[in-house]
Amino acid sequence: MELTVYLAGQIHDDWRDQLEDKAKEKNLPLNFVSPQTNHDRSDDIGEAILGQQPGKVYRDDAASSVNNLRTQVLLQKSDVVIALFGEKYKQWNTAMDASAAITMNKPTIIVRPESLIHPLKELSNKANVTVETIDQALDVLAYIYE
Amino acid sequence: MELTVYLAGQIHDDWRDQLEDKAKEKNLPLNFVSPQTNHDRSDDIGEAILGQQPGKVYRDDAASSVNNLRTQVLLQKSDVVIALFGEKYKQWNTAMDASAAITMNKPTIIVRPESLIHPLKELSNKANVTVETIDQALDVLAYIYE
Amino acid sequence: MELTVYLAGQIHDDWRDQLEDKAKEKNLPLNFVSPQTNHDRSDDIGEAILGQQPGKVYRDDAASSVNNLRTQVLLQKSDVVIALFGEKYKQWNTAMDASAAITMNKPTIIVRPESLIHPLKELSNKANVTVETIDQALDVLAYIYE
Amino acid sequence: MELTVYLAGQIHDDWRDQLEDKAKEKNLPLNFVSPQTNHDRSDDIGEAILGQQPGKVYRDDAASSVNNLRTQVLLQKSDVVIALFGEKYKQWNTAMDASAAITMNKPTIIVRPESLIHPLKELSNKANVTVETIDQALDVLAYIYE
Amino acid sequence: MELTVYLAGQIHDDWRDQLEDKAKEKNLPLNFVSPQTNHDRSDDIGEAILGQQPGKVYRDDAASSVNNLRTQVLLQKSDVVIALFGEKYKQWNTAMDASAAITMNKPTIIVRPESLIHPLKELSNKANVTVETIDQALDVLAYIYE
Amino acid sequence: MELTVYLAGQIHDDWRDQLEDKAKEKNLPLNFVSPQTNHDRSDDIGEAILGQQPGKVYRDDAASSVNNLRTQVLLQKSDVVIALFGEKYKQWNTAMDASAAITMNKPTIIVRPESLIHPLKELSNKANVTVETIDQALDVLAYIYE
Amino acid sequence: MELTVYLAGQIHDDWRDQLEDKAKEKNLPLNFVSPQTNHDRSDDIGEAILGQQPGKVYRDDAASSVNNLRTQVLLQKSDVVIALFGEKYKQWNTAMDASAAITMNKPTIIVRPESLIHPLKELSNKANVTVETIDQALDVLAYIYE
Amino acid sequence: MELTVYLAGQIHDDWRDQLEDKAKEKNLPLNFVSPQTNHDRSDDIGEAILGQQPGKVYRDDAASSVNNLRTQVLLQKSDVVIALFGEKYKQWNTAMDASAAITMNKPTIIVRPESLIHPLKELSNKANVTVETIDQALDVLAYIYE
Repeated sequence: MELTVYLAGQIHDDWRDQLEDKAKEKNLPLNFVSPQTNHDRSDDIGEAILGQQPGKVYRDDAASSVNNLRTQVLLQKSDVVIALFGEKYKQWNTAMDASAAITMNKPTIIVRPESLIHPLKELSNKANVTVETIDQALDVLAYIYE
Repeated sequence: MELTVYLAGQIHDDWRDQLEDKAKEKNLPLNFVSPQTNHDRSDDIGEAILGQQPGKVYRDDAASSVNNLRTQVLLQKSDVVIALFGEKYKQWNTAMDASAAITMNKPTIIVRPESLIHPLKELSNKANVTVETIDQALDVLAYIYE
Repeated sequence: MELTVYLAGQIHDDWRDQLEDKAKEKNLPLNFVSPQTNHDRSDDIGEAILGQQPGKVYRDDAASSVNNLRTQVLLQKSDVVIALFGEKYKQWNTAMDASAAITMNKPTIIVRPESLIHPLKELSNKANVTVETIDQALDVLAYIYE
Repeated sequence: MELTVYLAGQIHDDWRDQLEDKAKEKNLPLNFVSPQTNHDRSDDIGEAILGQQPGKVYRDDAASSVNNLRTQVLLQKSDVVIALFGEKYKQWNTAMDASAAITMNKPTIIVRPESLIHPLKELSNKANVTVETIDQALDVLAYIYE
Repeated sequence: MELTVYLAGQIHDDWRDQLEDKAKEKNLPLNFVSPQTNHDRSDDIGEAILGQQPGKVYRDDAASSVNNLRTQVLLQKSDVVIALFGEKYKQWNTAMDASAAITMNKPTIIVRPESLIHPLKELSNKANVTVETIDQALDVLAYIYE
Repeated sequence: MELTVYLAGQIHDDWRDQLEDKAKEKNLPLNFVSPQTNHDRSDDIGEAILGQQPGKVYRDDAASSVNNLRTQVLLQKSDVVIALFGEKYKQWNTAMDASAAITMNKPTIIVRPESLIHPLKELSNKANVTVETIDQALDVLAYIYE
Repeated sequence: MELTVYLAGQIHDDWRDQLEDKAKEKNLPLNFVSPQTNHDRSDDIGEAILGQQPGKVYRDDAASSVNNLRTQVLLQKSDVVIALFGEKYKQWNTAMDASAAITMNKPTIIVRPESLIHPLKELSNKANVTVETIDQALDVLAYIYE
Repeated sequence: MELTVYLAGQIHDDWRDQLEDKAKEKNLPLNFVSPQTNHDRSDDIGEAILGQQPGKVYRDDAASSVNNLRTQVLLQKSDVVIALFGEKYKQWNTAMDASAAITMNKPTIIVRPESLIHPLKELSNKANVTVETIDQALDVLAYIYE
């Protein structure tokens, strides 16, 4: 049984590649999808398609409309969601995606460092499982196939 | 037609009281509900009911389970949601509540300062309306009754 | 049993007032709700709340975000929807509201002149009932109480 | 990941063929479905199957019942919807399909010329993305695969 | 706690009046709603509102569109459904209403004579309870209040 | 695009085989599923699995529980439903399946002889299309692929 | 804001009366509903309405059909569910009601003694909150009104 | 047509292997999924992934969070559910899974010995079919393919 896994979370390091590599090593039949991970492309996609906008708020709204369409398509196709929080950035998109996934009844795993236990406590409690490392998240996925 | 409005967002100043007072001045038939706004009570509610827990992560999980039940009851009863973001704190609960509300098809208004346009751009784009002040949020609600 | 009726459609004459008056004459326990019927107010509401926008497309998007929140709140509260089409204007909002209502399983009545039979044929077929006058629409509502 | 894209909109030029050709050039794994694009066939299908009807309104209702079944089957199978508006015709079916798709939580792209910004403003605001050309619509779809 | 009960079924005797009278005697806080019980009015309602139709199939379709709107409004408002089958007539509307109610998760009671056990066996099995008399159906409703 | 079609209706002649043969001749990529078409097997399946029951009502309930499981599995897998009514038998299962399908938003075609126009008028009005022959039903399905 | 609370669980002592009394003392605007708490009546209700059945399995099925209708009506009307487990009896109805409530997105509180932590661990994890006493359950409800 | 079958129930003997072997002998195109059937692994999975917990209740909650994610993924993928009850153990997970499946409209078969008729009567009544042996359960599945 193949499963599609949406990888929500920060796009500032290669955690998705690491996760995919480890999943391949374990021969797990998982397909991974994710938001746009090129930050500049993600910020620029609105003007790249729609042309220059009259100021930052309009530029941002144009980009987010395309990013949100992408996320909606891929999240609806997913069987499981992993949402990773790190110590930098506001990461409201990660919280938004995790909460949308949980409300859509998508089984959801949160990955966050110990330092974020308190500010993420309500979201952790709503998710199925909360772990601290991507290895642990992969252990949870692997457990489905045992 | 009476409407129930859930007020998601930070609990560090009296913005909810201000909003309720202004709604009364305008004679709008609105009932406001909200998360626990006493921060200490919100953090302590798990141990207050369930007794002492063996460490911070368990104390936090106990509290969040009660806070989440409260939010789920009140959000399901609401006709409109206002989610206010400020410049301090991580405010992941606000993002979580706003995203849950939008996914549940609750009409949603986001209030955020100009400084947060960029990090909130995807959530703003998914919400119905984004404004900068609670007066503007109330203007949106008042418009329903015009 | 009181019913709430959403009145979608053009806002260029007083058909809603006529319908409400006739409903009162028949002592039908109906509450009517509708989009903003002041055309200028409807076009201006975005800038009235959010301030001046940098051009017509942004002014229109600001207005429509507030109009859409209003419609979403009132449509969700409604038990029946009447959508009236006339011979002037594009009336895409009327088609949008009628189609949204039908998709939400709201019982829906379309009112349209004979001249519009052909271009509205698919929407008419999806609605519960299609009539030519508001008196006929009211007859359908009155029949619920017989 | 293959996606099925429903192409709502006018059937008076070959915009669907153009879009499909360009998608092939980009090697995008997209399957396109659409309403009946032969206008005469679309108007005649009711009598073609059910036999002659007693007048235009009945002929139209017969045709639309078959067209609506087709659309319902294909829209339910789709992952994304593109709705194209042009400057001619009333295009209420396009508005109906776009609004049904949005209400069914199908990610939706609207394509419309600059001249239609104002009359389509509420529908544009409800859709995920609004663009002016089919190339831009395809750019949005291509972005899902980046 | 008041409950609204939809009474589906034949309209050829006064079983609804009997049921309502008995519910009043037992002081049960039940509100009863039902399809149009005047058979001629039910058959004529389409032409009464829409004018003469070009033949029986069109006359019937016009009437059924109004009858179906009425049923949809009242069924959506109901908390419980009773569907009574008798020995005469085809009663496909009763089967249609019962099946729609069950599919909408409305708790449903079927009343049918012993002679109809076999042809109604699948519908009986899907309903919550099947009884033979309206007194028994009322006993089931009364049990909710014990 | 392959579609699965559920064939509800009487099991007293070979209309399903005829329909499948004609679909094959037209090279339509349709998979057909249906209730148990061996009448004796359908009536006996409860006791065949569960052993002898203490009377006809219990024998019927046992059989219908297995028949209903089968129908629920296959109806949920279907993209389109055809429900055929003939002039004999009560056919409440056909009405039940058609109404369940319509309530589940399955596109639905009713096939019935002219003699049944009146008693089926409400169900016809709720279905997408009503025709008189299986050839016409197949024409409707073929139209999806034009 | 009044809330309706469904009290699932054993019917062998007066825990519901205790809970209601304590809620009154705290002036909480709560309406409590529950399954039939008279055990004999609950076991006998099928035969009381439908007459004697041919053996225990049929007697039990008759009773459970009426009990399940009651539960479905009251559970659908509820805003919150409390499910109490004790040390005696199998209590599969309590597990069934709690799991149905959670799947219906009803906020759910489980009350169970320390001795049942292990066998109820999965159900506890799915519920919003798990406590050990009805006083604690009431504290959770009271917290909604703080 | 391949079907996926979730096998809920006790994990203390090899009933799942027996069922799978018999399905293979009959050449039924069924894929079986199930909870973790290694009891120790199931109890230990939380600490295996998350590390040692501060006591039994926390150890159990950690394990159940991973078990519940697994069940949610596999139950959502399933077309039919079989829930087997035996004479030992509390088996609240089996009742929980069966009730969740029924509430999600998954066709559900309960397998239980005669001795459990009474305590399982309400759950049996809500399920589609109740049988006493896994051979009978397989007969029900085989009947779908007749």
